Amino acid sequence: MAVNLPPAGELSAVPGIRIGTAAAGIKYQERDDIALFALERGSNVGGVFTRSSFRAAPVAVAAERLGAARGLVVNSGNANAATGYRGLEDARSSCALAADVVGCEANEVLPFSTGVIGEFLPMDRMAEGIRRAGNALQDDAWLPAARAIMTTDTQPKGVSGRFEIGGSHITATAIVKGSGMIRPDMATLLAFLGTDAALSPEKVQDLARDLGERSFNRLTIDGDTSTNDSFVVAATGRAGVGDEHYDALLTRLTPLVVDLAQRTVRDGEGATKFVTVTVQGGASADECLRAAYTVAHSPLVKTALFAGDPNWGRFCMAIGRAGVEGLDPAGVSLHLDEVCVAHGGLVAASYTEEQGAAAMARDEFTVRIDLGRGDCAETVWTSDLSYEYVRINAEYRT
Amino acid sequence: MAVNLPPAGELSAVPGIRIGTAAAGIKYQERDDIALFALERGSNVGGVFTRSSFRAAPVAVAAERLGAARGLVVNSGNANAATGYRGLEDARSSCALAADVVGCEANEVLPFSTGVIGEFLPMDRMAEGIRRAGNALQDDAWLPAARAIMTTDTQPKGVSGRFEIGGSHITATAIVKGSGMIRPDMATLLAFLGTDAALSPEKVQDLARDLGERSFNRLTIDGDTSTNDSFVVAATGRAGVGDEHYDALLTRLTPLVVDLAQRTVRDGEGATKFVTVTVQGGASADECLRAAYTVAHSPLVKTALFAGDPNWGRFCMAIGRAGVEGLDPAGVSLHLDEVCVAHGGLVAASYTEEQGAAAMARDEFTVRIDLGRGDCAETVWTSDLSYEYVRINAEYRT
Repeated sequence: MAVNLPPAGELSAVPGIRIGTAAAGIKYQERDDIALFALERGSNVGGVFTRSSFRAAPVAVAAERLGAARGLVVNSGNANAATGYRGLEDARSSCALAADVVGCEANEVLPFSTGVIGEFLPMDRMAEGIRRAGNALQDDAWLPAARAIMTTDTQPKGVSGRFEIGGSHITATAIVKGSGMIRPDMATLLAFLGTDAALSPEKVQDLARDLGERSFNRLTIDGDTSTNDSFVVAATGRAGVGDEHYDALLTRLTPLVVDLAQRTVRDGEGATKFVTVTVQGGASADECLRAAYTVAHSPLVKTALFAGDPNWGRFCMAIGRAGVEGLDPAGVSLHLDEVCVAHGGLVAASYTEEQGAAAMARDEFTVRIDLGRGDCAETVWTSDLSYEYVRINAEYRT
Repeated sequence: MAVNLPPAGELSAVPGIRIGTAAAGIKYQERDDIALFALERGSNVGGVFTRSSFRAAPVAVAAERLGAARGLVVNSGNANAATGYRGLEDARSSCALAADVVGCEANEVLPFSTGVIGEFLPMDRMAEGIRRAGNALQDDAWLPAARAIMTTDTQPKGVSGRFEIGGSHITATAIVKGSGMIRPDMATLLAFLGTDAALSPEKVQDLARDLGERSFNRLTIDGDTSTNDSFVVAATGRAGVGDEHYDALLTRLTPLVVDLAQRTVRDGEGATKFVTVTVQGGASADECLRAAYTVAHSPLVKTALFAGDPNWGRFCMAIGRAGVEGLDPAGVSLHLDEVCVAHGGLVAASYTEEQGAAAMARDEFTVRIDLGRGDCAETVWTSDLSYEYVRINAEYRT
């Protein structure tokens, strides 16, 4: 059901990062479900995490271990969330097991988990899996890692880029899992970006925050936000440059991470459409973003997207309830790609249903709303609400 | 697909209110789509309306005409929303047509519309329909009126009550249409309550507000809010008492209107479950309501309700993203009816999956969440998210 989701393709090894994967049988059988990242000494890690009150044990542990780090240990199939004190112990134990095979201190390893909430990690299988992943460490295993962290994803998702900054060649590779429960504040999403840029703890943290804000914090599938979302950037320093070229690095990495973020929407649960929602003409960025999310979250809009129904009524219903104080409908217009559907709050005189239907028949299109009261604009990406979304989520666990 | 939706049954005539219905062919064929209410001289009308920025033309007109009134004119099939200046003119013309047959001034009639947004009312058919509804005015036509205002409702919905207050017998009958796009701020919902209590313009407005707050503003189907929602109370005064017994009247009418409001959820689009979500133990009513709505709106919770899956993970995900500042998961518990699923933020030791599944197999059950940090509580009612919801909303217009 994915919408124009490109294959992960060639994922470049990142100097200073070795990866091992293993099948631990945590929930899934006959596939890898552990990924272990060994980071060269001198690496720094930054990250942004879910804002859920119910943040999972591994998130609590990982968030305390940003900065100098030597390893990341990830499992799929079990989120180790809503697991209380024992969950924290299990997350720390997983790190200790990983530290043994990487050869570092336990507190130099960050844990990540994704999957079912409310069940304890099977620590015997975790231990065996981490040991075997440690034995399998190699330079070039980003694609197997992208596979190992999947849950309801239909495909592994990853991107790589190489570019020159300050006379040095820099490599970056990033992978992501996540296809539902996705919206700002990081949703059920685990994303890992590795680069050989040389970044201080402060700058690598800035990079995680800035990249996250421009990419993962601009997408939504169902408006739900998970307990485990994490976007982590690991910088090994092998390329020699970094901090002093921060702006250039951010500029070069942004399209790469936006591409990756959009792939989670393309692979959205039951998605049949990839839709860009742009709200412009707002008095503030905040009201544009709020209106864009209200449109992107509305079940009535999302079913219209699924049906390919250019239903101006549902769009104006959603804009109307977005809480844009004092909005004058007479200033609002709507375009579906190049088609002007509504202008001045009314269906446009030139508009025909056929034009709107043709735009929405595309796999990908842009919903552009102009609030007609300012110069601010924001964009989010979303998918539609299909029978398949209901099926996946009604059958996921039972 | 409705969940234990009782038939409208016997709806009592309300002294001082005559009702006529007619088939105008506005959108639907071979069914009534106009309802005209003629109110005896001396009647007062109160109302609460959608807070959408895109409130429809009839809402704008009706909201200006609260107080002394002589008629209500309602059509289904076309919402007269997002129709600009012409929409306002059409709403006013509908009132003028109704005033002619009722025998009053145009500004003593309030207009209401529900249906497709963004299309102009077919005024020739409206005129003919209103004329014929006027010819059909009779004392006892609440049930035909409940039918005439339906859109995607599976059944007409109405309730009646008779009680004695201050030595007088008071009659109240109320009808509602609405089965999607329903949430606070009145959603796609038209509800009309008629009573022969004697209420001043101020008290009838209080009554609409107080009853709405306790009933229609506590339910949600899909979180969407419409352009047309209106809850109107018309009091004819025939029973002779009212204002001086306001509290008693409110107390007696509340269960009647709560019953009516719950019927819109029971008839929710694609609903297979009627679910009461109670959040207690909150530090404020506001945070309880926010948490209850976040749970009730979450697509992942709603698909779990559909699947009958007692998925603690999805509930704690939703509670976690409700923005309850400083919430300690260790204080949170969850009951499904009598079954304690989670306690202290963890799956309860006594809990078995079978218990949870048995509770959720019921047509109706209560999700009770305790935040463990205060004495406030709030309740909302909701339905699940089924294949049928997607079908109805993907096919509604196309």
